[in-house]
Amino acid sequence: MSDDDDQTLGITESKEYATGDWYAEVCRKAGLTNYGPEGMSGFIVARPRAYGLWERVQGELDARFKDTGVQNAYFPLFIPESYLEREKDIVEGFDPEVAWVTHGGHDELEERLAVRPTSESIIAPYMSQWIRSHRDLPLRVNQWASVVRWEATETKPFFRTKEFLWQEGHTAHETDEEAWEETLTRLDQYEEVYEDVLAIPVMRGQKPDHDKFPGADTTTTVEALMPDGKSVQGATSHHLGQSFAEAFDITYSDEDEEERVAHTTSWGFSWRSLGALIMTHSDEQGLVLPPTLAPEQVVIVPIYQSDTKDEVIDYAEEVADDLEDAGVRVELDDRDERNPGFKFNEWELKGVPVRFEIGPHEVEDGEITAVHRPDGEEVTLDRDGVAESVRDELDTVYAKLFAAAEENIEENVRDADDRAGILGTLGQHGGYVRTPWCGDEACEEEISEQMAAEIVMVPFPDDEEKHHDDVLAGDAECAVCGDDADETAYFAKSY
Amino acid sequence: MSDDDDQTLGITESKEYATGDWYAEVCRKAGLTNYGPEGMSGFIVARPRAYGLWERVQGELDARFKDTGVQNAYFPLFIPESYLEREKDIVEGFDPEVAWVTHGGHDELEERLAVRPTSESIIAPYMSQWIRSHRDLPLRVNQWASVVRWEATETKPFFRTKEFLWQEGHTAHETDEEAWEETLTRLDQYEEVYEDVLAIPVMRGQKPDHDKFPGADTTTTVEALMPDGKSVQGATSHHLGQSFAEAFDITYSDEDEEERVAHTTSWGFSWRSLGALIMTHSDEQGLVLPPTLAPEQVVIVPIYQSDTKDEVIDYAEEVADDLEDAGVRVELDDRDERNPGFKFNEWELKGVPVRFEIGPHEVEDGEITAVHRPDGEEVTLDRDGVAESVRDELDTVYAKLFAAAEENIEENVRDADDRAGILGTLGQHGGYVRTPWCGDEACEEEISEQMAAEIVMVPFPDDEEKHHDDVLAGDAECAVCGDDADETAYFAKSY
Ligand SMILES: [Zn+2]
Ligand SMILES: [Zn+2]
Repeated sequence: MSDDDDQTLGITESKEYATGDWYAEVCRKAGLTNYGPEGMSGFIVARPRAYGLWERVQGELDARFKDTGVQNAYFPLFIPESYLEREKDIVEGFDPEVAWVTHGGHDELEERLAVRPTSESIIAPYMSQWIRSHRDLPLRVNQWASVVRWEATETKPFFRTKEFLWQEGHTAHETDEEAWEETLTRLDQYEEVYEDVLAIPVMRGQKPDHDKFPGADTTTTVEALMPDGKSVQGATSHHLGQSFAEAFDITYSDEDEEERVAHTTSWGFSWRSLGALIMTHSDEQGLVLPPTLAPEQVVIVPIYQSDTKDEVIDYAEEVADDLEDAGVRVELDDRDERNPGFKFNEWELKGVPVRFEIGPHEVEDGEITAVHRPDGEEVTLDRDGVAESVRDELDTVYAKLFAAAEENIEENVRDADDRAGILGTLGQHGGYVRTPWCGDEACEEEISEQMAAEIVMVPFPDDEEKHHDDVLAGDAECAVCGDDADETAYFAKSY
Repeated sequence: MSDDDDQTLGITESKEYATGDWYAEVCRKAGLTNYGPEGMSGFIVARPRAYGLWERVQGELDARFKDTGVQNAYFPLFIPESYLEREKDIVEGFDPEVAWVTHGGHDELEERLAVRPTSESIIAPYMSQWIRSHRDLPLRVNQWASVVRWEATETKPFFRTKEFLWQEGHTAHETDEEAWEETLTRLDQYEEVYEDVLAIPVMRGQKPDHDKFPGADTTTTVEALMPDGKSVQGATSHHLGQSFAEAFDITYSDEDEEERVAHTTSWGFSWRSLGALIMTHSDEQGLVLPPTLAPEQVVIVPIYQSDTKDEVIDYAEEVADDLEDAGVRVELDDRDERNPGFKFNEWELKGVPVRFEIGPHEVEDGEITAVHRPDGEEVTLDRDGVAESVRDELDTVYAKLFAAAEENIEENVRDADDRAGILGTLGQHGGYVRTPWCGDEACEEEISEQMAAEIVMVPFPDDEEKHHDDVLAGDAECAVCGDDADETAYFAKSY
């Protein structure tokens, strides 16, 4: 079956009842992804419509990084096995499933090389070389690249792929405070891009101690709640303390020429964010994109008979020119061989936020009918000043998407005070279940043994509104073991 | 020896007499590159100062691509061996030396995977899927990525590395004419970026038939002449005709629903361009960058005693603010612990195009002393309007760099009419030796057997000024074999 046939048929799966199949269908039919070649399960092709989204997200994040002192660099794709082993010594339990290069050309290599699953083990030794004195600090380096993790799971475009695109930032600082501030700066930027660009509200907090990045002091996270009630770890920012710096000899001489160990951070954001984007906003007509990211923010569909064609097309072209001049990304769909209904469906499938319908009536009245993609709302705009008024429509579409996602997250944080409550609530509703927690991993395991759920987030100590009331009041008992609890745990099923 | 010591010492090698060593020293001391880990010869780290150059070049090229209908996409890093074999069938002699992935995690793979040495063998099958009808054409896809070619040669940052960054574009068209037009559009863009951004004049033309990209109808090239007399292939754009489309089944139905084979092109530009940039403009004080690419276009060095410090610094800060507001990339070097001489050397080493010197005299007279990096020329600028007048200085620096490189290329095209002339001229001067040529590979081999030189370029038929006079006159004889010659060959040693 050709792609063209696929498009004619539209989306057939139910978002509510067959979320996974629906998601895969949207990725395919909206022209976002293909699967990799036979024999390469787990790999995908990011087609231009998907890669364009990544470019915009990347641009937004990269500009924020650069405004705050980050420089990009490029490190080798391969990492000698001995380098990974060195990392293994530091961070117990780090045993990456990687792709191994064993041959170069016709020769077997003396030492096999890992295709980078992440690059800290190769970046850190260079940071060690580059840093001599306190004048070299802070040092902030970031890399945009693809990484490979050989995990055998079912492929889900952007959520689960053996190869994925991401950025990893690595910084070194003189003091613990600066490193912590850096960690939060990056978390703020991740939150901002999720909320202001992807139109996805997120929960910020930290991972439970037992689920931190190995070797880190603190792993901070932004979590997004998907419509199927599962949480997605949106991005993480790690305060690494001095453990990595000690292991990789990242030291500097201070103002008194004393040798000091630096404090480091690392932080990463991947194309999983595109998975969250598609999953959150799209519907059974196909992809839905916020205007911040849409390759076409407005599509103009002219509606005419042979006797009205010229006036309608002329009018539509002028509107398109006005929008383009104003910097709006606009597409005029003047294909003769397709009828308006077909075009409506196709552009809905592709996620264009606002559709302009222009027929003889609109021309006569000097108006434009604008239709919002998320809910089909129709608005009549004056032709005059449309290049400005369209901004309001785009803002409204963004606001609708954000509000719907926000409602989902707000309605799906529920308190529970005991084991049965946690399991029952997760089973019935999904979402986040908020409980007092003693901090012991064993209490999480008691839940995760019975249901594929875990503690995805613990609020920051000072983020009071996110804490369970009893924890705030200081008289909480762990919902699982009954011991004193001074933490609040957010349990959820997760991607 | 630490990097800091290195900097103090400055460049010690001679550009003229030890070009290779000088080049390596500039890359190291200007903070551009490091070599890869032990056991990974051929790999380099592009440090932020080098990667920033790549980002700017990439931005310039990418904007031109997008303005002319190209979309970016991302294809898997790995290519199954059977895919490469398929390409081997089409393009005789294609036997890439690649890095082979044989294991994923703890398991041996059923089919080994090549780390992409180039991606046409994986991109073409998807293009075949995506193209159904003439309405899908032209299709233009580009990928920015790293590729790996396992060639055992001495590492030379950017010029010869086992892994390098590049872009490869692939397009499909309805007609041969459109494909040829596309080929030249990309060649034009490569030429433009070399000349207008990198400040390097290039020679455009095509490769001799026997040196085309395997399977291509025509390989076009831009060649740059390095100061040591060797030619660098700056970028290539291939008119592939229908051979790839036939092999990979890239077909479309035309307006009459007839199945047709598409016409395709491919074109690539790599970080070798950075090698050409560094090699062309830099000198024995270090890196020299055109203002188009320099991370800092202007560095301000204040010169003061303790009693004049405040006024000088205030004045310098205001100048810096003015420049920054005008969009000039400016750095005020107000480090107290370094003297002006040290700063001059350091910023010269790093290649900043224009230095502003500001001392008490400048403050008193309302002036600024501007110094051009390439030749040390000093210009006195009025403080008023400096944010505009600095543009002229930057333009002048660019023009000086371009003119010097242009002089090099113009002075180094020499005619020869026989074998001895070719060998003697190349041996004595390097550069390009222009001769009438019969078109037979054997005649090139007679030269290349005696000297590491080859035909790097043949002018386009209509590019009359580049042809040998005898060829234009129509009575030429091949400089090697004496047969009738209707082509002009440019012999050169090359990187
Ligand atoms: Zn407990
Ligand atoms: Zn000959």
